[in-house]
Amino acid sequence: MAALQRLQPVSHVAVSGGTHGNEMSGIYLVKHWLREPSALQRDSFSATPFLANPLAIERCVRYVGRDLNRTFTKQFLNSKATQDEPYEVQRARKINQLYGPKGSAQAFDFLFELHNTTANVGACLIASVQDNLLPMHMCHFIQTHCTLGHYPILLYNLPDQEAYSISSVAKHGLAFELGPQPQGVLRADLLTQMGALVACALDFIDLFNKGTTFPAFETEAYRFIGSVDYPRHPDGELCASVHSKLQDKDFLPLRPGDPIFQTFSGEEILYQGHATIYPVFINEAAYYEKKIAFNKTEKCSLSIPALQRE
Amino acid sequence: MAALQRLQPVSHVAVSGGTHGNEMSGIYLVKHWLREPSALQRDSFSATPFLANPLAIERCVRYVGRDLNRTFTKQFLNSKATQDEPYEVQRARKINQLYGPKGSAQAFDFLFELHNTTANVGACLIASVQDNLLPMHMCHFIQTHCTLGHYPILLYNLPDQEAYSISSVAKHGLAFELGPQPQGVLRADLLTQMGALVACALDFIDLFNKGTTFPAFETEAYRFIGSVDYPRHPDGELCASVHSKLQDKDFLPLRPGDPIFQTFSGEEILYQGHATIYPVFINEAAYYEKKIAFNKTEKCSLSIPALQRE
Repeated sequence: MAALQRLQPVSHVAVSGGTHGNEMSGIYLVKHWLREPSALQRDSFSATPFLANPLAIERCVRYVGRDLNRTFTKQFLNSKATQDEPYEVQRARKINQLYGPKGSAQAFDFLFELHNTTANVGACLIASVQDNLLPMHMCHFIQTHCTLGHYPILLYNLPDQEAYSISSVAKHGLAFELGPQPQGVLRADLLTQMGALVACALDFIDLFNKGTTFPAFETEAYRFIGSVDYPRHPDGELCASVHSKLQDKDFLPLRPGDPIFQTFSGEEILYQGHATIYPVFINEAAYYEKKIAFNKTEKCSLSIPALQRE
Repeated sequence: MAALQRLQPVSHVAVSGGTHGNEMSGIYLVKHWLREPSALQRDSFSATPFLANPLAIERCVRYVGRDLNRTFTKQFLNSKATQDEPYEVQRARKINQLYGPKGSAQAFDFLFELHNTTANVGACLIASVQDNLLPMHMCHFIQTHCTLGHYPILLYNLPDQEAYSISSVAKHGLAFELGPQPQGVLRADLLTQMGALVACALDFIDLFNKGTTFPAFETEAYRFIGSVDYPRHPDGELCASVHSKLQDKDFLPLRPGDPIFQTFSGEEILYQGHATIYPVFINEAAYYEKKIAFNKTEKCSLSIPALQRE
């Protein structure tokens, strides 16, 4: 087991809602906090709430020109403004200016992303990579202290892939992904749960800032390994839906030979892989256009060293 | 009890999907039937499937310019085409030309509407008014013969209100409203259920055409009596969500004093009415912009006379 790791205290924290303009829990939490900011205050810091994609929120759509949460890469952040660029490229540069710049010493210490999905993921904690200790200890703290649900950890970055999400402009980040919730719908239960998650995470940061030692731990996580598209007719049109036996089974094992799709003519399509996987984001509305019926993950064990502030 | 009523046989039948372009069950059923029309054939007739709002379907939005399913009134159907009119006004006139004209002898005999909602309505049968005997007997036949669920009947027309939905261009019509399903998501279970409903309804028409006598019956229905908006800040912004105790409770009794909303600051808002009502379309995504948190209905008893073809 590695020795105790030390990190600098966390003073600049931001909470983003509405990176996707039809994911309502984060949008209405942030709008509420902008009116009543006291919920985001702790002894050692105050978190800053902001709406990431105001135009998409106004129109209640995921995005206006392109997916904002795939736009925080060097290619877009370092691009020169042009007249016909998508609205989200301009927003990404602005957010990077306010809460970054990405990779710099001035960047915010921590940035939260609040998301919803139509998939039955429960309350999922999404980190980019496991070697970022602060979010991993935060996940463990949430799993230990938050009692409203189960909190699976999803690691989304493929090896050598540049992080592209909004939280990547800060030094550390974590996304809360709550579902199922339809696009454009605000459910009270998920709103309450997301508020409790943010409160718990801010409590963790406050304890960290005050010098608490967080012991080493072992945990399980789900690592993204690829995606599966819908079966289609030759003209590209869907010819099947997600199988009713796979629907809503996010984070549960899918074994070779298990049904994954049912065609509109009534045939079953079985999973042809060679190993058990754990599908996530099954039948997410926003992923039809990305040609993703579900994402594949594998379960992995993590050993996280102890953590304390410098 | 009134005497046996006689109606003309039903030969021209159409099934519309995608009146709202992000309600996926009907869209994909109709796309499937356009490729394989045999499911819509019966001895005495064949039903014609069609997609009502192709541009909205392509963009996966409810509508492009205005809600198509509020556009089948004389005001729009009799209007002269103009360059800047909403796409849906043009579509409504075209559909009226193909399957109507509304109120005329040439109009189709029966038009089905296939809808989804994010609300937990189950499989709801929506008729415009109770004195249209053919749809009422069809509802009763479905309730008796379809075993996949419970099928509440909703009567949506207010007294003296002109019918505005797509099925009103035909002589008779019925809407199938299945939920909960997020916009832009296709669930296998609801697709199967909607297909079974249409099949059962076509079987009913075939039996009717062949001379079957359908006895008089008594049934319950829910009659639309108004709607309730979300609580809002003075600037119009929502300040509350549907209460978790009301969420998903469509068609269940709501009594004076029951909680209906919870504000983002944590207060409960109670129902102030004087009588028990039965809310429906609770927290429907498409109704935020219509300022409807839920629709109010009252339960009523109907006596429907026996029916046979002429």
